[in-house]
Amino acid sequence: MTAIYFNSWLEEYKHPFGAIQQLNTAHFSINVKSAGVEKVSLIMRKEDGERGFERLPMTAETDDFYKCSYTFDQGKGLYFYYFEVLCNGEATIYCGSNQGNGGIGVLSTAIEEVHPYQITCYETHDPAPDWYRNGVVYQIFPDRFFNGNLHREISHSKRNTFIYGTYEDEPLYLKDENDEIIRWDFFGGNLMGIIKKVPYLKSLGVTVLYLNPIFEAASNHRYDTGDYFAVDGILGDEETFEQLVSILHENDMRLILDGVFSHVGRNSRYFNHDGRYGKGSGAYQNIESPYYPWFSFSESPEEYKSWWGIKDLPEINKDNTDFQQFIYGKDGVLDKWTSLGVDGWRLDVADELPDFFITGIRQRLNQYPEKVLIGEVWEDASKKISYDQRREYVFGNALHGVMNYPFRESILAYLDEKQTSQQLAEQLTILQENYPEAIFYNNLNNIGTHDTERILTLLDNNTTKLSFALGLMFMLPGVPTIYYGDEAGLTGGKDPANRKFFPWENQDQAIFENYQRWVRRRTENPILAQGGFYPFYTDELLGVLRCHKGQSALYLVNLTDKEVAVSIDNLHFTKALPIFESLLQELLKDVVIAEHSDCFIMKNEED
Amino acid sequence: MTAIYFNSWLEEYKHPFGAIQQLNTAHFSINVKSAGVEKVSLIMRKEDGERGFERLPMTAETDDFYKCSYTFDQGKGLYFYYFEVLCNGEATIYCGSNQGNGGIGVLSTAIEEVHPYQITCYETHDPAPDWYRNGVVYQIFPDRFFNGNLHREISHSKRNTFIYGTYEDEPLYLKDENDEIIRWDFFGGNLMGIIKKVPYLKSLGVTVLYLNPIFEAASNHRYDTGDYFAVDGILGDEETFEQLVSILHENDMRLILDGVFSHVGRNSRYFNHDGRYGKGSGAYQNIESPYYPWFSFSESPEEYKSWWGIKDLPEINKDNTDFQQFIYGKDGVLDKWTSLGVDGWRLDVADELPDFFITGIRQRLNQYPEKVLIGEVWEDASKKISYDQRREYVFGNALHGVMNYPFRESILAYLDEKQTSQQLAEQLTILQENYPEAIFYNNLNNIGTHDTERILTLLDNNTTKLSFALGLMFMLPGVPTIYYGDEAGLTGGKDPANRKFFPWENQDQAIFENYQRWVRRRTENPILAQGGFYPFYTDELLGVLRCHKGQSALYLVNLTDKEVAVSIDNLHFTKALPIFESLLQELLKDVVIAEHSDCFIMKNEED
Repeated sequence: MTAIYFNSWLEEYKHPFGAIQQLNTAHFSINVKSAGVEKVSLIMRKEDGERGFERLPMTAETDDFYKCSYTFDQGKGLYFYYFEVLCNGEATIYCGSNQGNGGIGVLSTAIEEVHPYQITCYETHDPAPDWYRNGVVYQIFPDRFFNGNLHREISHSKRNTFIYGTYEDEPLYLKDENDEIIRWDFFGGNLMGIIKKVPYLKSLGVTVLYLNPIFEAASNHRYDTGDYFAVDGILGDEETFEQLVSILHENDMRLILDGVFSHVGRNSRYFNHDGRYGKGSGAYQNIESPYYPWFSFSESPEEYKSWWGIKDLPEINKDNTDFQQFIYGKDGVLDKWTSLGVDGWRLDVADELPDFFITGIRQRLNQYPEKVLIGEVWEDASKKISYDQRREYVFGNALHGVMNYPFRESILAYLDEKQTSQQLAEQLTILQENYPEAIFYNNLNNIGTHDTERILTLLDNNTTKLSFALGLMFMLPGVPTIYYGDEAGLTGGKDPANRKFFPWENQDQAIFENYQRWVRRRTENPILAQGGFYPFYTDELLGVLRCHKGQSALYLVNLTDKEVAVSIDNLHFTKALPIFESLLQELLKDVVIAEHSDCFIMKNEED
Repeated sequence: MTAIYFNSWLEEYKHPFGAIQQLNTAHFSINVKSAGVEKVSLIMRKEDGERGFERLPMTAETDDFYKCSYTFDQGKGLYFYYFEVLCNGEATIYCGSNQGNGGIGVLSTAIEEVHPYQITCYETHDPAPDWYRNGVVYQIFPDRFFNGNLHREISHSKRNTFIYGTYEDEPLYLKDENDEIIRWDFFGGNLMGIIKKVPYLKSLGVTVLYLNPIFEAASNHRYDTGDYFAVDGILGDEETFEQLVSILHENDMRLILDGVFSHVGRNSRYFNHDGRYGKGSGAYQNIESPYYPWFSFSESPEEYKSWWGIKDLPEINKDNTDFQQFIYGKDGVLDKWTSLGVDGWRLDVADELPDFFITGIRQRLNQYPEKVLIGEVWEDASKKISYDQRREYVFGNALHGVMNYPFRESILAYLDEKQTSQQLAEQLTILQENYPEAIFYNNLNNIGTHDTERILTLLDNNTTKLSFALGLMFMLPGVPTIYYGDEAGLTGGKDPANRKFFPWENQDQAIFENYQRWVRRRTENPILAQGGFYPFYTDELLGVLRCHKGQSALYLVNLTDKEVAVSIDNLHFTKALPIFESLLQELLKDVVIAEHSDCFIMKNEED
């Protein structure tokens, strides 16, 4: 009988944990207990690497641990590995991963059943600037936050649009039978509104604003850019924008804008379908237009490539060098706004932007100190394939991080009791392992955005569960994002119900105070932003331990309807216990968590 | 051979012309040229009269004119007559009307083919107050005129409604697949806006405002009354209303309100479908509600009688005495607003109001001096049958007059060249004959309202034809109404396109000046309001002659593309020439009307 054990999350089996920088060496051990072991090998393959499969012999020294080392000298990218054990007179046994995820190895005698482990190899250690990593982000959908005009009037509202009668109205898409929008709907939030609410944001404690698009456009969401060089009139003008930037900076706050470079609006200066930017200008009306080569017409002007087939959003051909220069060349769009003081960019639909395009943007941003670049990617970005291409979002010199939707999904599945605490702890560890460490701490975490249902609605208006979701988001590495209004108890299902106006007259004070508390914890205790991350679980509880420079912070969630007394003996860590057992014992001494409750404990070792 | 001639429009055949007051006597003559006339009779029947058909023998004295008289002693209502001529050895010949209309008689030998002439017999001569008869009305759809708030903000806008983005927006109904309104749309015009535009209205010269409904309601048109005792909040409050009344009166202007008493809104205080007036109150939510008997439920609460089957408009059972008191009893709706200074009422869908209900309203209004009561009736109201009942709108002690849609239709048919000038002159004479004289001068004339396409649009944007339509409306007896914006050149097809916002930034100055000129002519020359009315025609021209106390006014329209020199010999009057031929000759001397032109001439006899 043969016993084989490997666990990529434990440092005695694989060191270092997780992703690795190129040219560094990782050490592998596999425990093989068997009478007649003939040969143990590590099989390693760099994706698209010239060397193909490499077979590394492993040797046991004083015990049953077979060891070898591998130096990642084939450049950045994904490497895949598994183990091969040959025993006398028996079939070869393979040890691979559980469905491509890390953790305990899965044995098999059929090579076609083996799922190799992934190792992410990155080019550079790429931490985002401190203001970002230590920050708490607040996302604003500008039309829906606050109208700062003196008499709540709407400045420069658009022709043939609708303004909601009251701020309490339910948002509604006005579509024709072909599902095309016939009128865009606005509440009239604007930049002056954000300026006037800076004291509110300060009282909440957030340090970074992320704004959904603000450039001139036809719609209320402005993902259909009309003019990259102008603030949308209904939001304000460039002067107001500069005023916003300086007021934020005076208040030690930062600003991230939404960069929508994959497509433009049909009625943009560039495509100009309806002629609003001047008859005969733009690609639709004139094949001689300088913008014509930006688009891909199969038959001009009616047949053109558009985003997800939505004719309102003609797609840009990113291979066009003129467009590249327009966006990230000198005096291009990035220069224009970054030089006005924008601190970071969130790239919309990063999957639609080629890697070279993202790198081009990053290089332009590197001209400025302390800027951040985040991408919209919905999956584990370390292994994302889009359009048949493995994407290089997180291998260095590209994105600082991505919007961390997988985090959100795991948290929701757990709170919805579709997954156990063990499964959640494991999923969090999988992500941690796959992402380069810097990226993992750079990611923009959320429990809801303008593209998802409201968290409170998804949780069936259960404010206790909301409190857990919030606690988890703030305890995880990566930068927490508050979607405007979540802290006021705003509800709503799918778009457009998730884009209601901020309920200034009807804020839930208890929810607000909970948010405020977590924001304060996070911004006042670097451990929550920077500390090591150790998820753990018991049969009843989920826990997160953060450790940093002799400080520890613990968060425990009890989803069950029973009071739970914590015992250190029942705790299961996905990774090696990071601190002395005695310290953990002390931390958890006498801790009893009531049913449907959570618990936050923080301790300095010198305490 | 027998020659028989009768013409109800000529005084030698029937005297007096037109309708007659009860107990008065009319004189009939028929010209019968025949060798062997045996017997000539007038056959007269009062509709629903107890005496049935009456045969009056007619006798000839010195000539071929057979005469008789009839005294209208069977009370108000419609009387019908025709003639019967018996000749020696020949078939009986009948002389009746042309399809029930007045003018030259039509002969027939088959009794079943005879269409009797109509004589309208009224109870009382019922002229409206002078301010009304001599006035020019301006109709305002309040949401679409002007926002008088200081910063154009919308006060008290309604939950889940839309405000148009700009004043230039195209109105749009927002309906679901069942054609039900899902959101009401507003521009935000209000009472303060009307107050602020009184100087504009003065410059136009109008003297009476007729406002579409202003009481609390859910919709933008407010025909779905929510509360009869409140001004709709988005329009202003009672104080603003009182301010409007006093400013109008200070400026010698009067105010007519729209009385919508046939039905209420589903979401009214009385029906209270959605509970906005308090849970458990109103007929829908509570069969114990005092309002429950106002409605006709076949199955409570879902099955109830509603206006034209529109569930949003539950119909009132007008037999309910409580509702009658509520509207026209002491301290009822009429009292409330009339005592605040309202000068008149326009009754919405008068066909849906029983005669006793209209009389009840009229009697209540008679408690106040100088009030006017107009009804919405789309056809010739003298002979209107609704719900199998001959209606008594215009027989006295009921309506002062009705909205004169038949006038408008005839004018449009003529300008659209679907009818000749002769046909138009005849149709105008038919109406004049059927209406009691007072009513004819009380009617509220229009060339477009909130219920029709815009006049300029119907005329294919032909401003010359607009000018003719305007000239004809101002030359006809009855009170001309300008539908807001027509004077600014506003266009638009069917509802809602006919309810655009007033184009304050884009007024057509030439059209405005033409309106202004006609308003001034009308208000400065009593002849146009009070003068006798004589339509006439030539092959090329349509003419209207007005005569009053030695003054004459003439209006001529040349729709053709040829210059026309007027000759008195070619003129055809539908009625007897009212002035000396020499005077007419003088009036028309050297008058040449260019192609596509009109001509207005006024003369005092002493000139």
